Amino acid sequence: MANLQDIGVSATINLLSALAFLVAFALLRLQPINDRVYFPKWYLKGIRGSPRRSGRVHNFVNLDFNMYIRFLNWMPAALKMPEPELIEHAGLDSAVFVRIYLLGLKIFVPVTFLSFAVLVPVNWTGDTLEHAKGLTYSDIDKLSISNIPAASKRFWAHIVMFYVFSFWTYYVLYKEYKLIASMRLRFLAAQKRRPDQFTVLLRNVPLDPDESISKHIEHFFFVNHPDHYLTHQLVYNANYLAKLVEKKKGLQNWLVYYENKYERSSTQRPTTKTGLWGLWGTKVDAIEYYSTEVEKLSKEEDKEREKVLSDPDALIPAAFVSFKTRWAAAVCAQTQQSSNPTIWLTEWAPEPRDLFWDNLAIPYVNLALRKLIMAVALFFLTFCFMIPIAFVQSLANIEGIEKVFPFLKPIIEKKVIKSVIQGFLPGIALKIFLILLPRILMAMSQIEGFTSLSALDRRTAEKYHLFILVNVFFGSVVTGTAFQQLQKFLNEPSTEFTKTVGDSIPMKATFFITYIMVDGWAGIAAEILRLVPLVMFHLKNAFLVKTDQDRDQAMDPGCLDFPVSEPRIQLYILLGLVYSVVTPILLPFILVFFAFSYLVYRHQIINVYNQKYESGAAFWPHVHRRVIIGLMIAQLLLMGLFSMREAEQSSACLVALPILTLWVHKFCQGRFESAFVKFPLQDAMVKDTLEKATEPNLDLKAYLKDAYVHPVFKDSSLEQITFIDDDEESNSLVPTKRTSRRSSKFPSEDNSESDA
Amino acid sequence: MANLQDIGVSATINLLSALAFLVAFALLRLQPINDRVYFPKWYLKGIRGSPRRSGRVHNFVNLDFNMYIRFLNWMPAALKMPEPELIEHAGLDSAVFVRIYLLGLKIFVPVTFLSFAVLVPVNWTGDTLEHAKGLTYSDIDKLSISNIPAASKRFWAHIVMFYVFSFWTYYVLYKEYKLIASMRLRFLAAQKRRPDQFTVLLRNVPLDPDESISKHIEHFFFVNHPDHYLTHQLVYNANYLAKLVEKKKGLQNWLVYYENKYERSSTQRPTTKTGLWGLWGTKVDAIEYYSTEVEKLSKEEDKEREKVLSDPDALIPAAFVSFKTRWAAAVCAQTQQSSNPTIWLTEWAPEPRDLFWDNLAIPYVNLALRKLIMAVALFFLTFCFMIPIAFVQSLANIEGIEKVFPFLKPIIEKKVIKSVIQGFLPGIALKIFLILLPRILMAMSQIEGFTSLSALDRRTAEKYHLFILVNVFFGSVVTGTAFQQLQKFLNEPSTEFTKTVGDSIPMKATFFITYIMVDGWAGIAAEILRLVPLVMFHLKNAFLVKTDQDRDQAMDPGCLDFPVSEPRIQLYILLGLVYSVVTPILLPFILVFFAFSYLVYRHQIINVYNQKYESGAAFWPHVHRRVIIGLMIAQLLLMGLFSMREAEQSSACLVALPILTLWVHKFCQGRFESAFVKFPLQDAMVKDTLEKATEPNLDLKAYLKDAYVHPVFKDSSLEQITFIDDDEESNSLVPTKRTSRRSSKFPSEDNSESDA
Repeated sequence: MANLQDIGVSATINLLSALAFLVAFALLRLQPINDRVYFPKWYLKGIRGSPRRSGRVHNFVNLDFNMYIRFLNWMPAALKMPEPELIEHAGLDSAVFVRIYLLGLKIFVPVTFLSFAVLVPVNWTGDTLEHAKGLTYSDIDKLSISNIPAASKRFWAHIVMFYVFSFWTYYVLYKEYKLIASMRLRFLAAQKRRPDQFTVLLRNVPLDPDESISKHIEHFFFVNHPDHYLTHQLVYNANYLAKLVEKKKGLQNWLVYYENKYERSSTQRPTTKTGLWGLWGTKVDAIEYYSTEVEKLSKEEDKEREKVLSDPDALIPAAFVSFKTRWAAAVCAQTQQSSNPTIWLTEWAPEPRDLFWDNLAIPYVNLALRKLIMAVALFFLTFCFMIPIAFVQSLANIEGIEKVFPFLKPIIEKKVIKSVIQGFLPGIALKIFLILLPRILMAMSQIEGFTSLSALDRRTAEKYHLFILVNVFFGSVVTGTAFQQLQKFLNEPSTEFTKTVGDSIPMKATFFITYIMVDGWAGIAAEILRLVPLVMFHLKNAFLVKTDQDRDQAMDPGCLDFPVSEPRIQLYILLGLVYSVVTPILLPFILVFFAFSYLVYRHQIINVYNQKYESGAAFWPHVHRRVIIGLMIAQLLLMGLFSMREAEQSSACLVALPILTLWVHKFCQGRFESAFVKFPLQDAMVKDTLEKATEPNLDLKAYLKDAYVHPVFKDSSLEQITFIDDDEESNSLVPTKRTSRRSSKFPSEDNSESDA
Repeated sequence: MANLQDIGVSATINLLSALAFLVAFALLRLQPINDRVYFPKWYLKGIRGSPRRSGRVHNFVNLDFNMYIRFLNWMPAALKMPEPELIEHAGLDSAVFVRIYLLGLKIFVPVTFLSFAVLVPVNWTGDTLEHAKGLTYSDIDKLSISNIPAASKRFWAHIVMFYVFSFWTYYVLYKEYKLIASMRLRFLAAQKRRPDQFTVLLRNVPLDPDESISKHIEHFFFVNHPDHYLTHQLVYNANYLAKLVEKKKGLQNWLVYYENKYERSSTQRPTTKTGLWGLWGTKVDAIEYYSTEVEKLSKEEDKEREKVLSDPDALIPAAFVSFKTRWAAAVCAQTQQSSNPTIWLTEWAPEPRDLFWDNLAIPYVNLALRKLIMAVALFFLTFCFMIPIAFVQSLANIEGIEKVFPFLKPIIEKKVIKSVIQGFLPGIALKIFLILLPRILMAMSQIEGFTSLSALDRRTAEKYHLFILVNVFFGSVVTGTAFQQLQKFLNEPSTEFTKTVGDSIPMKATFFITYIMVDGWAGIAAEILRLVPLVMFHLKNAFLVKTDQDRDQAMDPGCLDFPVSEPRIQLYILLGLVYSVVTPILLPFILVFFAFSYLVYRHQIINVYNQKYESGAAFWPHVHRRVIIGLMIAQLLLMGLFSMREAEQSSACLVALPILTLWVHKFCQGRFESAFVKFPLQDAMVKDTLEKATEPNLDLKAYLKDAYVHPVFKDSSLEQITFIDDDEESNSLVPTKRTSRRSSKFPSEDNSESDA
């Protein structure tokens, strides 16, 4: 077992690597050439131009050494933007996302203080380990609950403290839920006119042999919402067309690449091969080949586009139905239309960019079946994912490779290479799986049939949370694969499972401390460096970019990776709750994680990320639920731990906690959840009335005309511009001095200068 | 263990007692004096007059011996009324309730046939028990799964059959849900104009310091439902007034009783004592005493009534808000009004007679707390109810009684009385508890804050189902109290519990067979005899009745006891599912129960019961869910049973079943449940349009004026008449020959005559 010194060494290493990342970041971000990697958000807003063009810095490399000295200046800058402005700037989703880290801080700062003030002394003076013979123990164990003798009365201190911690967590959760619900309501109330406010997504329109889908919808709504129905927008099955557009884009990129190549070294025309990835097949002139291919595709695209628009079979039995008022849309989204609940399904329309078009056409029965299959698949993925990986690992050994590729034998047999293969290959299979995992989970969510990107993200986060819980948390505490755990869980008394897990928890404290440092500290520092987008940007810059506009296109601001980041936070919250009474020494490490992450992500959402959609913090009920789950797991495990230490009566005292937790959850849900799933009529009416008064002559039909057209039918560049306009419009509502001053400068330097 | 002969004897005894009940019923129901006990429904409908008055039978005792010969004639008569007419006559609730028995028959008739055709031969030729030495076994065991050797391949027959049974159950459940959903929709669509179609129940109106509640509501709905709001009805806190009215009724009964007594034996004026129950206190003239008491109460009542109507503090922050159209009411009931989900809560208004007025004023936070407390209480009631009863039992022994009432000592010490006390007293405590249990559960549901009688009934049934499941089913299979079971369940591996339970299931078959005969057969036969209402009616008749109208008042038609009857059916369905593959010989007994109950209850709802409310079969989702729970329990227990018989791989084959069951439940729920909880806009619009066309000049406001007035503010006799009128009106829609012919005759005789 590791002692304090080992932890110290590990902490030093991880701190140093985190520091290295930060220094690298500080250096790289000052280089003008990287400006588009580290400040893309400002470019997208149109506030920041190319640094070279704006005449401030003349070189690719920044030579102003004063700037290097204050290399941590981004930190106060990240904290400086007040929250309302942050919501304006980056959207409510992002602003609330960083609040999850704040939630972690709010829970654990007082918990840490109390824990160190009360529990650490109690544990330290427990004196069990010193007197036990033949036991190796470390200083950390002396600070943990392991140092308390069995059936000691000192356990009451832990019980009482855990009650205090639980109630504190309830309080913080309640407060935060309340705050975020009101933030969401204010955000929605302040929103400008948007197409989705007037529109519901209608699915599973029944087919009528006598009428076209369009007529059928029109008649239905004219009859059942007579005073309110305005118009509707049909949905075309443009999935194939979207694929063509995507393919054409790829070919165009290649064309540009070869044209650039030819321009720069005009000695000979570049060539390519027509086969797979340009590696096989006949040699042809590259520019000619790609331009003909692009032309061919353009024609096919036009044909397909016409076909989709004219063919009635390409119509999906779904539509976007718009109403004259927000009130009517709210009514239609919240009520059932037909007595058959599988047809004429209405729900809030997601905003146009949030739509996941592929899933609009799935019929009801199909949907239920997909959910069943995906639930079974998720079970096997979570509990049995090691089986196929072990199989791949067994294949990917030296003998296996030699069998399939006999010609590689002389190379492989060399000692160095052999040891590399034997050492790395098995790990690589697992690593690849773990990297691919979020994508697999996302694909599974897509199969389940959600119609918006935000819903897909939330669902994927749920799956990933389960996976982390089973395979990282329980997998580390109970040694063995998830499947073995499951067997153990089924074949042992249900209380026995919590007991064994609870009992082994104190021993795993050092493991989790190092885990937090590697995954949390260094991982977050790597996040700010953005290594992959950095490399990608420079590759694109080198080969594809001709104009400044191209350069903007090459920019990849990325966005918050909610499905991956959120479950990770939940793991840390769970760890904090579990170890708050067991091994308090773990808490400061978690505090550092939350504080550092808060800083980094606040910086990122201000300067980098460009969200793909704005759901108005619709994910918060999920976050809340998962914290509750974590709290409940902690409570059950502690009950097991205490009953193992022959403190049965104190264990019984904890029984009330899980019930209370469940009740707090139900209570908060009943109190606040509706703010995230429904839109109250009162608020809709207020906005309607206001609009009627201020813009009596608004032509809503024209406004909504093209709002819900599949993106492939729109000019993509046009869309981009519209979107930016929208953003600026909403920004101009609260014009701040800083945003206007920032336009030609670096935002962080700007701040530090005004500070100095 | 019992063998076939023992079962036969028991069956004979129970059949004989059931027969005795039936013969008693057949004799009693033909006596004109009992007419109001056995045919109250027809009196309430106004179709049947007093038999003596109608001139057909002149004596108190029926002397027409021809009628006695055909004493089972009520059975075909009960089956004869076609279902649509039954719905007209007794309401959808009753008609659907008897369909639960039909559901049992539908599931178990094919299951019984298949089981006897396949599993009985397989079991019979298993030959284990004959060759086992030192084992006592019965013929029944030879027919059960116990006769199959461990790890035999014959188990595959059971597995396959159980899959067949499960899928058959899914199919029947799906079909039935679908049918009943469509029955409900048709029923709602065919309903005449009713106040609740236009009305929503509004709760938790926020208090406004500047406005009265009435004004506040009016303004809110004028703003937020501008084109649709019609009127609203405030709710007064008349709970105390209702108590006064109730008390006055009781006193009036006593007054009438003494007046009658004096009339009959006019020699001396009757006296009473003013103390508790007329047993203690000063002696006074009874008639004078009660008439002054009644007068006093009348005055108090008037004062209280005025006070309630004038005092603003007596207003509850709730109201019945009515709209101009059904469409608008459907919209308001299904949408959220305010951004704060704890105020301006709207839900469908129950029909006026279904309302539970006491609960209308409970605020939101209070409600959440009540639910928590009741959940905990239910847990203790279910698992620990034996503790207080054992305590009472320990007090209620000979010594205890002698201590408290020393003067009883000489009587108690007599041998006969002593043995009676020792034999019966402990049992009586339990029996009293079991009789009180439904009331206790109902009181708990009332505390939880439901606002309609139908919701209270559904909730109570849920609780009673849990109690039966834990204490009757598991309590019988696993010996020991529920609390011991719980401990066992927690301290054993979760698979172990299903194994022990599964293993002891075959041994309990004979116990459950006798249980079915005693509780099912004889119990149902007792139901038709209506012993308690019979006695009560004759007591009232003797002491309180002066006119025919009084006699009608003395009539107690009763109603379906849904909270008690439905969970009992569920127990039988569970038993049938569990034993379908284990001990098929149990199935015929269940079939007899279902068939017999179907007959009896169909007879009762036609001739006797008068439902207190009509919920339109809103309970069906609950029935469906509980059958699903039963099926799931059966599947898990069978998995345990097979794995105990060393048929592990066949046990593994059953894993898919619980998942499938869950999925079927989800699927049916998604497909049909909305028909029971929502009212589709399309249907509302159809009814609105029809009404607008047929009655363009309807004064809806006048129609709704007094619909939702607390019953104590209405003249109770007036209400009665209105209700009967309503019923006749709806009856006249489908006039049948039989109803009109029946008016002066016995319905069953009528049928038998037309048959002959």
